Amino acid sequence: MNHTGSHDEILTAILDVLRNPTQNQIPIGISNRHIHLSQADLESLFGAGHCLTKTKELSQPGQYACKETVTICGPKGAIEKVRVLGPVRSKTQVEILASDCFRLGVNAPVKSSGDLTGTPGDVTLVGSKGSVRLQEGLMIAQRHIHMSCEDAKRLDVRDGQLVSIEVYGTRGGVLHNTLIRANDDSYLECHLDMEEANALGADASATIEIKK
Amino acid sequence: MNHTGSHDEILTAILDVLRNPTQNQIPIGISNRHIHLSQADLESLFGAGHCLTKTKELSQPGQYACKETVTICGPKGAIEKVRVLGPVRSKTQVEILASDCFRLGVNAPVKSSGDLTGTPGDVTLVGSKGSVRLQEGLMIAQRHIHMSCEDAKRLDVRDGQLVSIEVYGTRGGVLHNTLIRANDDSYLECHLDMEEANALGADASATIEIKK
Repeated sequence: MNHTGSHDEILTAILDVLRNPTQNQIPIGISNRHIHLSQADLESLFGAGHCLTKTKELSQPGQYACKETVTICGPKGAIEKVRVLGPVRSKTQVEILASDCFRLGVNAPVKSSGDLTGTPGDVTLVGSKGSVRLQEGLMIAQRHIHMSCEDAKRLDVRDGQLVSIEVYGTRGGVLHNTLIRANDDSYLECHLDMEEANALGADASATIEIKK
Repeated sequence: MNHTGSHDEILTAILDVLRNPTQNQIPIGISNRHIHLSQADLESLFGAGHCLTKTKELSQPGQYACKETVTICGPKGAIEKVRVLGPVRSKTQVEILASDCFRLGVNAPVKSSGDLTGTPGDVTLVGSKGSVRLQEGLMIAQRHIHMSCEDAKRLDVRDGQLVSIEVYGTRGGVLHNTLIRANDDSYLECHLDMEEANALGADASATIEIKK
């Protein structure tokens, strides 16, 4: 962290670290495969006028898990009961695990959530009332850290930056190319998918630290 | 690497690196869940006097995949068609993925292959002719690098040492606590399980490098 303030400001910052030595520890959230739907695709899958049924708030403000699940069908296989997350988005996005590519028989790129550029469709989603053949939106989500702009300032990183993160423990290590997503609608949390968390031996109580 | 020889020896080593800049790149082998059986357990599962049926040589000398598969049954679920690897060993060992712990409802430790100390049983194996309730041998295999003693000398590591390894690519990173297994019956290869390889974006053509 760069401190370019007065001696008093620097001493205050040092005191802050001494009082709270874990302030650079970032909690993790572990994502299984999941789907964000557009309103049009939601209605194709679950019927005209259908609204998502919230079952559980997620850690990021306004995000929630839904009662609705879909089957993802690829050329080689299908995965049932894949959770839909709300609210609806402007475009449908299917976030799978790298191992799901083998099961489905597809080749999904590692992409930042929301950036559908160049993503394939290659799968059909099936809901209780119908199906949708995707033209794009299939991806493996790039690992990332949500944070507020204040967190970004404190941790000396900026929105869009790629950092390395240290995960501790028997299976510990450093993961490069972790995307900083800083905006004032976010809580501090590092999102790994299940394979990343399992490979590094991290459970929901684990924390990570940024190592630039 | 430490060079404590004469200037001529050091210059020769430098020339060697310049001529072959990829000599420190170690190929990887990716393991899915699998099982090593004792002869007694093999016979309980597949019938008295049964011998393993080799279908494919593996990269390490004398190791092979077999036609035989078993079902692993845990308190919460089962995994079918888990491959048996040969030859038989003195003790049965079941190597699963971290995500399999959730499916099976068990808690397997990360252990070095062959070291069954403190490993749980907690699962029943089912074959075509019978079943075996394990008393021990369930583990998540610790990542490791097989090599000859000559490789170990060249790479300046020793049998039993823990090193960090660098994996390159979009999902690249550094994995700590990777065990060196050096003996003259081994070929140079770094063994990661499927979740580790997927999390780091490494396919069978990937290579790693030791970063102590």
